[in-house]
Amino acid sequence: MANFNFKNLILIKPCILDDECFARAMHAQKILNDAKIYNSFDEAIKNIDYLIATSSIESKSDKKHLRNAIEPEDLTKKLFEIDGNVGIVFGREDFGLLNIEIAKCDVMLRIPTSLNYPSLNLSHAVALVLYSLFIKNNVVSKEKRIIGKIEKEKLFKFFKEILKQINYPEHKKEKTNVMFKRIMGRAIPSKWEYHTLMGVFSKIIELLKTKK
Amino acid sequence: MANFNFKNLILIKPCILDDECFARAMHAQKILNDAKIYNSFDEAIKNIDYLIATSSIESKSDKKHLRNAIEPEDLTKKLFEIDGNVGIVFGREDFGLLNIEIAKCDVMLRIPTSLNYPSLNLSHAVALVLYSLFIKNNVVSKEKRIIGKIEKEKLFKFFKEILKQINYPEHKKEKTNVMFKRIMGRAIPSKWEYHTLMGVFSKIIELLKTKK
Repeated sequence: MANFNFKNLILIKPCILDDECFARAMHAQKILNDAKIYNSFDEAIKNIDYLIATSSIESKSDKKHLRNAIEPEDLTKKLFEIDGNVGIVFGREDFGLLNIEIAKCDVMLRIPTSLNYPSLNLSHAVALVLYSLFIKNNVVSKEKRIIGKIEKEKLFKFFKEILKQINYPEHKKEKTNVMFKRIMGRAIPSKWEYHTLMGVFSKIIELLKTKK
Repeated sequence: MANFNFKNLILIKPCILDDECFARAMHAQKILNDAKIYNSFDEAIKNIDYLIATSSIESKSDKKHLRNAIEPEDLTKKLFEIDGNVGIVFGREDFGLLNIEIAKCDVMLRIPTSLNYPSLNLSHAVALVLYSLFIKNNVVSKEKRIIGKIEKEKLFKFFKEILKQINYPEHKKEKTNVMFKRIMGRAIPSKWEYHTLMGVFSKIIELLKTKK
């Protein structure tokens, strides 16, 4: 939860939260400390406006609910439409959610897994769902590579000049220039990377020229 | 791994695989049974054509060349273009991967996490990466680029040699070599592209040498 900026944990009839629980929470002990604890599902969901049940298992009981299930990628779009409290419900480690609990939820979220081994560890299920929501929400943290258009053109010019300096076969020149452009186009170098490559290329050109 | 149809586990200097390990593997004991065990990183990666280092931590240090990372969503696109053995490298639970290990990889994969609590549990990191690959797996790619591992290493050697020939500043050499590796790692050149680049590079080296 802390890894993906989630804060509000609700526990229903949990085990005793002993020292081991807090030790395992590592730097996220605040979440465990602030967790709200309820004795029944109904009590816990009283103030939740939109409830999402989760499952990866294709059990008989889940099947009818999973028929209309959405997947994590679709969930984010839905969540943006919601003005209110959203709750994601995870079931018990051993047998998941009961039908009666699933029925009380607004939507069923299916976590895609292998058909050969669909049942996820609870901790993994939570991580996958929260991660899916996090990466769609979090545009800020994504560090984009800033392409320097000027640097790019200059680098291609330098590469062309190198081909000239090494007397590269005329009939192969264009193809090789395009190839270099394609490689860079796939790599999408940052400004810093362009500058560094240009430093290397300009030194090559300088040496090849002066030594002629 | 079993949840997302991955089969080949490689362990480097693992703990003793005792009964508890197998009990925890649940229905995925076959993976643990079939795991290949090595005593060194170099040995383990010998037959891997494309190596992906993983990290969730965004270092702001001068190791930014190691950290010019791609994210899971970009990785999946790249991987379906590759015809060869791909290895995803996860570090130690406590301190991740060493710089020297990261440097040996073709690309750095950053798992997006909260800036307040970026360090992921190893098991979660693995689950998130394999899940990301699994959900994109139905995408069929048309044209796989065949990576030549031998060509790749040779090209890096050539680039290194060029830096030597142009008297590239000693303290910047390693950083720039790793940068070049990262650019190629993101671009995933084909065999033909490697050969063409090598043709250019070897000619540069030849001229720089003979003119000395």
